[in-house]
Amino acid sequence: MTDPGPVPRSIEWIGGLDGAARLIDQTCLPAALSYIDCRDVPTMREAIASLRVRGAPAIGIAGAMGAVLGIRDEHEEDRVAFLNQLDRVCAELASARPTAVNLSWALDRMRTRARALVGYGVPALKKALLEEARRIRDEDAAMCRNIGRHGEGLIGPGTAVLTHCNAGALATAEHGTALAPMYAAHAQGRAFRVYATETRPLLQGARLTAWELGQAGIDVTLICDSAVGAVMKRGLVDVVITGADRIAANGDVANKIGTYSVAVLAQQHGVPFYVAAPSSTFDLSTPTGSTIPIEERHPDEIRFYSGKPTAPAGISCHNPAFDVTPAALVTGFITETGLIRPVTKEDIARALGRSRAG
Amino acid sequence: MTDPGPVPRSIEWIGGLDGAARLIDQTCLPAALSYIDCRDVPTMREAIASLRVRGAPAIGIAGAMGAVLGIRDEHEEDRVAFLNQLDRVCAELASARPTAVNLSWALDRMRTRARALVGYGVPALKKALLEEARRIRDEDAAMCRNIGRHGEGLIGPGTAVLTHCNAGALATAEHGTALAPMYAAHAQGRAFRVYATETRPLLQGARLTAWELGQAGIDVTLICDSAVGAVMKRGLVDVVITGADRIAANGDVANKIGTYSVAVLAQQHGVPFYVAAPSSTFDLSTPTGSTIPIEERHPDEIRFYSGKPTAPAGISCHNPAFDVTPAALVTGFITETGLIRPVTKEDIARALGRSRAG
Repeated sequence: MTDPGPVPRSIEWIGGLDGAARLIDQTCLPAALSYIDCRDVPTMREAIASLRVRGAPAIGIAGAMGAVLGIRDEHEEDRVAFLNQLDRVCAELASARPTAVNLSWALDRMRTRARALVGYGVPALKKALLEEARRIRDEDAAMCRNIGRHGEGLIGPGTAVLTHCNAGALATAEHGTALAPMYAAHAQGRAFRVYATETRPLLQGARLTAWELGQAGIDVTLICDSAVGAVMKRGLVDVVITGADRIAANGDVANKIGTYSVAVLAQQHGVPFYVAAPSSTFDLSTPTGSTIPIEERHPDEIRFYSGKPTAPAGISCHNPAFDVTPAALVTGFITETGLIRPVTKEDIARALGRSRAG
Repeated sequence: MTDPGPVPRSIEWIGGLDGAARLIDQTCLPAALSYIDCRDVPTMREAIASLRVRGAPAIGIAGAMGAVLGIRDEHEEDRVAFLNQLDRVCAELASARPTAVNLSWALDRMRTRARALVGYGVPALKKALLEEARRIRDEDAAMCRNIGRHGEGLIGPGTAVLTHCNAGALATAEHGTALAPMYAAHAQGRAFRVYATETRPLLQGARLTAWELGQAGIDVTLICDSAVGAVMKRGLVDVVITGADRIAANGDVANKIGTYSVAVLAQQHGVPFYVAAPSSTFDLSTPTGSTIPIEERHPDEIRFYSGKPTAPAGISCHNPAFDVTPAALVTGFITETGLIRPVTKEDIARALGRSRAG
């Protein structure tokens, strides 16, 4: 695949074992693009806890690199003491965002890797763990590129794509999930347009999606969430691509609040609605979307912006973080192994079975 | 009708001819409820121009009261000089918001009234103009109360109403249009719940609707615009009531951006969708909504909140102020003369003909 141009790198390792994990401080976006070089565990832990690095895959990578930072200065004689230190560091990092599945998954992978290298002394283990952290990053980047490769056919010359929230480079190692087909189509030299919704209350669309697509030179127009219907009614949108937080066995999709409204409006206007996600987002143990728990977040996310009140003090708010889009509204899934279209329980099981067997 | 309790008064005249026009400074909401007593024309003109008073009916009342402020200290001998001064003052006030139809309408009414009182000397004219300004306010309040009376039957005990933007007391003399049925039902002692959408980009729902309903003791819950679909899908909404900026002869409704999305979602979930507006909002010279011009507002409304950036500097935005909801999605209209239901061109013409003849 052609190089898709200057896609921002949310996180990468700079230099050798004495290097640093460099990450974009996402809390400064869009006002400023500033990087943090994490050289010790407390700095990395704070970056994860304070959402300087966010997005499930990116957090996993940050955890793995944080583990390297926590063991690289260990004494080089005692393998047992080294493994104990690795466990302590991983526990400390995991507590930064206790509910983030990717974080504990990546830290467990680092610990398992160290123990699997039975004959290795401490110096070799240190190098192997840095390699493992880089591999976690690279695997995620490859997954994103493959989603892009399978999805870019949906974006022809002149296509107008609408996306909601940020399932982009900033949330992953490189190209994102929903945004990966856009980066891939851009790399082919195709001219197209993206409508990014603001995504209240935390404005990930305005602050992050609009920013990263703009950085890459993609033509992006920001709209309020409330304008989706009007924009579709005017015939301005050809296809919707969003990400997903969890996909049930029957194809119901839990994603950022507002996704369901976009899907209903897309169906009303005959606009295809695609969801881009790696196979790991499919949870076959969840039969339908109705059993997916929906997190209710703090009302101050709605009541304040950047410390300034946006609503009466103490007003009641209903602030669900996610909603569930029924499979019937989903035209297709874009995964790292290909498109799943049409969306049925059987097609999903077949596609995932192939990918998990492969 | 029972007194609906402490509905905030956007604007009223305090005292006699030496009194003042007291208005709520809406730019301070919701952080603070502060009043301005306007005692001269420059103060009133600045209040109108800076949106301290907003909403078409409220601006008309402000203009009429401003005209009184501009003539009450005139010499009491020369009727001709007095009428000339009235014209100058009205021109000065009208220029504060040149496109606001209600403002020039109210000022013209004041000038016409003065000239119609042929035998009056200046002292009697001053009193008559204060009476006229108060009458404009009272007529608007009566219109609101009548909309409330005709609409309150839609809100039974336990009903959950959803409204978008602010078509409330702050925009009118007293009870608003969309909110009038809620104030009326509240006055009947009925317990019900209102979901108010934030209404990006200017947050009139969060800053104004949530505030004024809360002040009146009505149970109000604020949601992001993007949550409308999810809330309806959970069966939490029984009826939608919004206002209107202009209604075409066939029943198509131009209103705040996002209204159309709410209407599509309401239809999808079998939720009745009502529009509350006085007969003056119906424009029978506009055959359908497709010919209503849609104002595109400045992108900085989306790119900044209270001076803080919410999006990348210079990002392209599409910021339509209004959208058009087709008549087919409107269950009925609530006007000061009764309900129009079903919505057809013929039913609208018949209802308005009756009201305009009466």
